[in-house]
Amino acid sequence: MELFLDCLPCLLRQVLEAARMASDDEAVQARIMDDAVATLARHGEFATAPAMAAEMHGLVRRHTGLDDPYAAIKARDVAAALGLVPLLEEFVGVAVDPLAAAVKVSATGNVMDSALFKDLDITAVVRAELERPFAAADLAELRTALAGARTVLVIGDNAGEAVFDTLLLRELAREHEVVFAVRSRPIINDVTADEARAIGVDRYARVVASGCGAPGLILAEADPVFRELFDAVDVVISKGQGNFEALSDAPRDVFFLLKAKCAKIGHALDVPVGAYVLRLHAPTGVVMR
Amino acid sequence: MELFLDCLPCLLRQVLEAARMASDDEAVQARIMDDAVATLARHGEFATAPAMAAEMHGLVRRHTGLDDPYAAIKARDVAAALGLVPLLEEFVGVAVDPLAAAVKVSATGNVMDSALFKDLDITAVVRAELERPFAAADLAELRTALAGARTVLVIGDNAGEAVFDTLLLRELAREHEVVFAVRSRPIINDVTADEARAIGVDRYARVVASGCGAPGLILAEADPVFRELFDAVDVVISKGQGNFEALSDAPRDVFFLLKAKCAKIGHALDVPVGAYVLRLHAPTGVVMR
Repeated sequence: MELFLDCLPCLLRQVLEAARMASDDEAVQARIMDDAVATLARHGEFATAPAMAAEMHGLVRRHTGLDDPYAAIKARDVAAALGLVPLLEEFVGVAVDPLAAAVKVSATGNVMDSALFKDLDITAVVRAELERPFAAADLAELRTALAGARTVLVIGDNAGEAVFDTLLLRELAREHEVVFAVRSRPIINDVTADEARAIGVDRYARVVASGCGAPGLILAEADPVFRELFDAVDVVISKGQGNFEALSDAPRDVFFLLKAKCAKIGHALDVPVGAYVLRLHAPTGVVMR
Repeated sequence: MELFLDCLPCLLRQVLEAARMASDDEAVQARIMDDAVATLARHGEFATAPAMAAEMHGLVRRHTGLDDPYAAIKARDVAAALGLVPLLEEFVGVAVDPLAAAVKVSATGNVMDSALFKDLDITAVVRAELERPFAAADLAELRTALAGARTVLVIGDNAGEAVFDTLLLRELAREHEVVFAVRSRPIINDVTADEARAIGVDRYARVVASGCGAPGLILAEADPVFRELFDAVDVVISKGQGNFEALSDAPRDVFFLLKAKCAKIGHALDVPVGAYVLRLHAPTGVVMR
């Protein structure tokens, strides 16, 4: 998906947040912002928002020497999410349709994005979000795809969200061989391999680093071995907005599972901002039913 | 008040909004954004956010030839505000302290900022906002200053807000000679002289253009005649965040009346974001009581 003009102020705001997490020195923050503005000026060179975000957050790393400014935020989000597991278990446990419930749990995890959780009662927010139905959900298509599938690849998003994903991975692992893809280096609050394993993702799925360090899986930057896996698996479920932006033109069927967090993504998915979506992207137009 | 790093993404977002109001042509919008990013790169040259905002919105004018992209928005906001006058009249009419109530009405007008009113029930919002007390209010100081005053200058902010201001101007006009200052050219949704007169501000106050076209009164850019007036009047009441940013170091007593709409302004005023404030700025440190 193209980089929108709306992405420019949004990415600049996000890099300032990262700069402040990485350094208390206002002169360092200002130098990062100067370089970030210079990067904005080259926006035509970036195919997607995740590609530009990767470059801009690289500036934070270069100016501060800090590889993972969001480490503490991610640890906090993961701890908060782990505290919610009984609530999530109950939501799936009492459901008539456990797969549908687990898909909703996984989608709801998308609100664990740190930026959204300043001073909010997480339990109350998640409880309310769980009860919100999908604005659009290609569940029948997912069931059909899974019915004939041996292997399923789930592409992870943020660290706290990965805890929610474990409930979906567990459902999938009952009948499938599951792989959970993570970034190859820390980027914003996205989940890495170590964090995924610490969360216990590997009870249900093989954890694989994609080779890409952008906050969205850019296939052109993926490891060749991962790229083969991506092409070969029977079903791909992509979590979150960044992966949707990077994979929206992927040359294979992908189920995008996310909450539309900005107007441009809402427009692309034809849903209101804030809506939950499970959307099958089927570039060949031939969907197995 | 200095330009904060936080202002950079915020001003960039705002200029994109203006660009879209001024032109449907995405190529034109992109050229405006390119020039806006180039302006961001020179952020060290701007003393305040309103100074940079003026330059950035000048780009919209240059690229589109449109002098007043927010004309329709302002007309809509003014119409909405005029519809609220009976509610505002009642709020002041039943008040034990009509001056305090009129000050609160004027402060509440600060929410008429167009960006905040997408799809909200304006009457319900304004009713709730009216009932919210000031987080901090130098009302005793204002009363003391007014008690010995002949002339009062109120520096206007956005167009819809000016309707709310008329209730304060009416209270002030009972015992004072009142001047209402406006921008000298259209800038974002700020009130201009024609709009102020159409609203009926001139029933209670002489409408004067400041000579400045920034979204905040920059004294160095003011007309010399206006600057004399600013120095000579007995009491100055400055409305809104832009005027606060531009006048926070003014070399005279100023009462700042506003809602703190961002973290930096809240921090500067030592109040939470969203709080209403009436704050006396007294650079000499000698306040008449």
